[in-house]
Amino acid sequence: MRYTVAIMDEKKIVAIYKKTGPRFETKARVTLKEKKDFSLWYTPGVGSASLHLAKRPKDARLMSIKKNSVAVISDGSAVLGLGNIGPYGALPVMEGKALIFKEMGGVDAWPLVLDTHDPDEIVRIVKAIAPNFGGINLEDIKAPECFEIEKRLIKELDIPVMHDDQHGTAIVVLAGLINASRVVKKDLKKLKVVISGAGAAGTAVAKLLLADGVRDIILLDRTGTIYTGRTGLSGNKAELAQLTNPCKVAGDLALAMRGADAFIGLSGKGLLRAAHVASMAERSIVFAMANPEPEILPAEAKKAGAMVIATGRSDFPNQINNALVFPGIFRGALDKGVREITLATKLRAARALAALVARPTAAKIIPDLLDKRVVPAVAKAVR
Amino acid sequence: MRYTVAIMDEKKIVAIYKKTGPRFETKARVTLKEKKDFSLWYTPGVGSASLHLAKRPKDARLMSIKKNSVAVISDGSAVLGLGNIGPYGALPVMEGKALIFKEMGGVDAWPLVLDTHDPDEIVRIVKAIAPNFGGINLEDIKAPECFEIEKRLIKELDIPVMHDDQHGTAIVVLAGLINASRVVKKDLKKLKVVISGAGAAGTAVAKLLLADGVRDIILLDRTGTIYTGRTGLSGNKAELAQLTNPCKVAGDLALAMRGADAFIGLSGKGLLRAAHVASMAERSIVFAMANPEPEILPAEAKKAGAMVIATGRSDFPNQINNALVFPGIFRGALDKGVREITLATKLRAARALAALVARPTAAKIIPDLLDKRVVPAVAKAVR
Repeated sequence: MRYTVAIMDEKKIVAIYKKTGPRFETKARVTLKEKKDFSLWYTPGVGSASLHLAKRPKDARLMSIKKNSVAVISDGSAVLGLGNIGPYGALPVMEGKALIFKEMGGVDAWPLVLDTHDPDEIVRIVKAIAPNFGGINLEDIKAPECFEIEKRLIKELDIPVMHDDQHGTAIVVLAGLINASRVVKKDLKKLKVVISGAGAAGTAVAKLLLADGVRDIILLDRTGTIYTGRTGLSGNKAELAQLTNPCKVAGDLALAMRGADAFIGLSGKGLLRAAHVASMAERSIVFAMANPEPEILPAEAKKAGAMVIATGRSDFPNQINNALVFPGIFRGALDKGVREITLATKLRAARALAALVARPTAAKIIPDLLDKRVVPAVAKAVR
Repeated sequence: MRYTVAIMDEKKIVAIYKKTGPRFETKARVTLKEKKDFSLWYTPGVGSASLHLAKRPKDARLMSIKKNSVAVISDGSAVLGLGNIGPYGALPVMEGKALIFKEMGGVDAWPLVLDTHDPDEIVRIVKAIAPNFGGINLEDIKAPECFEIEKRLIKELDIPVMHDDQHGTAIVVLAGLINASRVVKKDLKKLKVVISGAGAAGTAVAKLLLADGVRDIILLDRTGTIYTGRTGLSGNKAELAQLTNPCKVAGDLALAMRGADAFIGLSGKGLLRAAHVASMAERSIVFAMANPEPEILPAEAKKAGAMVIATGRSDFPNQINNALVFPGIFRGALDKGVREITLATKLRAARALAALVARPTAAKIIPDLLDKRVVPAVAKAVR
């Protein structure tokens, strides 16, 4: 069943955004009221700070915006579930992320949508602007380019770089799955997991679940299940074929879903049908996380028999959203001067998030976005 | 006489900067307190804004940070009077400018120092990040690269681009000279003007003075006066030789200064000696604007006979500083959706600034940085 969710009236939202203008602004942290303020914070005083940083660039982390700033960078090639809608299409999302960075994590984030899709160019640009920032949040860059871009930047920069669509998603999904498996009384490691979508998010989720001990994972792209021997696989999909689908299940979503314990949707709206859910194992888990419109509506999944249901959205229960992760990850990284967000950090962050829900239920597997404990718990996981 | 001004204790300033950390931060303009706030400002609501901007990118000026934001961009190749001290050396200056942008002009500015000196690369980067900004302030990029970079960006972008070292300086110098000529009771157009420094600022000042009708201008670089026939001149200096020095004065600063009415220093500390000032015409004007340390100290220039003396600094009278210009120029450009800062705008802005001092005196030729009338007056000049 294909559908379109009338989430909110698009015209009404656009009108609100137009009336609002920028959703954040800059604000002085020092006074600029007297001549002596200019002498200290501009010329001649600023010359001393400049000479100092020319000699000791590392002190930029102490005495400039670099101390608390993150660039939110996107080329607009994979925005939400909307696809390649370019830099201007990406801008509202990056601005929203910058807003959440500040309000949740106290991080001064600045959106930088890029008017290019060339990975070499993106790497060069990010390297060139890196001195201004204490961290780089890559966002909504399509696979497979995102893998190479992130890998090269992590290697070449001395500040933390994280592609949030990959790792923020992976962390929050693992957190949700830890608690969902408790609700359905199944062993996380023995879950049969189907992941719809083998892009940036699907790939990273699969890898983090594997790292946490989950063994039976089947990924699907538009063609169907990914398995060793499928023709035409390359890059990250060839790698995924090696790492997942141990029984080499070859077929479509309907086949993969038969007897599955958990569905993780990182694909597109309406892809999951009631019949798929009905064919799952007992006490099944459905994370329909496509944004802005999920693979299946929660009510429909419930009617078809799913026990624990989550989406990425704020207007349904169990919101499995990266916003639970990125403010805390970068808060921790900035505070501790961490150069890389390691696998161990990601696993710790997922467990810390899950642990915030002391007694998970079908209606509550993940902390609320407004839960003040979230950012400190995630930040603490960064070492 | 060479000297070092003990402006402030460098260690003390660095300690203050370290204690302060970032001098500005980001601040939300919307509320993010309830689930429905996330639904509107993040997913799913933000999807509607993204789809809209993908179709109508021009509306980014209405409904995103682009409405009120300026990038302050430098490669650190010509920072203050300190030379090529690189991106980290430049960062405190750009951060100080961003602070002034906000406090004076209400503009949300973000520093972007670039870790490259390649003009092609700088142009590519600025073009790629342009969607986020309503204007581009180029800063502290050395000549001659700054000319090409600015020219190409003005041509290729649909937002205003201004190299402030050139045009901000030219505007504020012309404003000061208009009033200084009134104080010394000489006709501006008939002044014999010597400009020390033929870099970005010197070149732009010469061109703006010419545009306003000043005829007798001699520029000097490290080699001496610039004149048609001097060997080895190319690029902007060859052009300046055509435009200035009508009598083809060939020689050093001492020669050029004999009988001059006005000295405009855009060069380096201590270059102007008392004997030079003493050799000027009666009722002479000395703008010693090198930052952070001027070409001559005001007290010394006065003792040598100068009648009107100005510097670029906040701790001396008559501060001829770009901070009087850039907040108003970009405030006006953002408010009016102007694509280019034209010559006519620059002349209007200089005259508007000068007019704010109703009765100029030797001690007061230019409005104070703290004068609330400055930004509106300059912004009004932008059309």
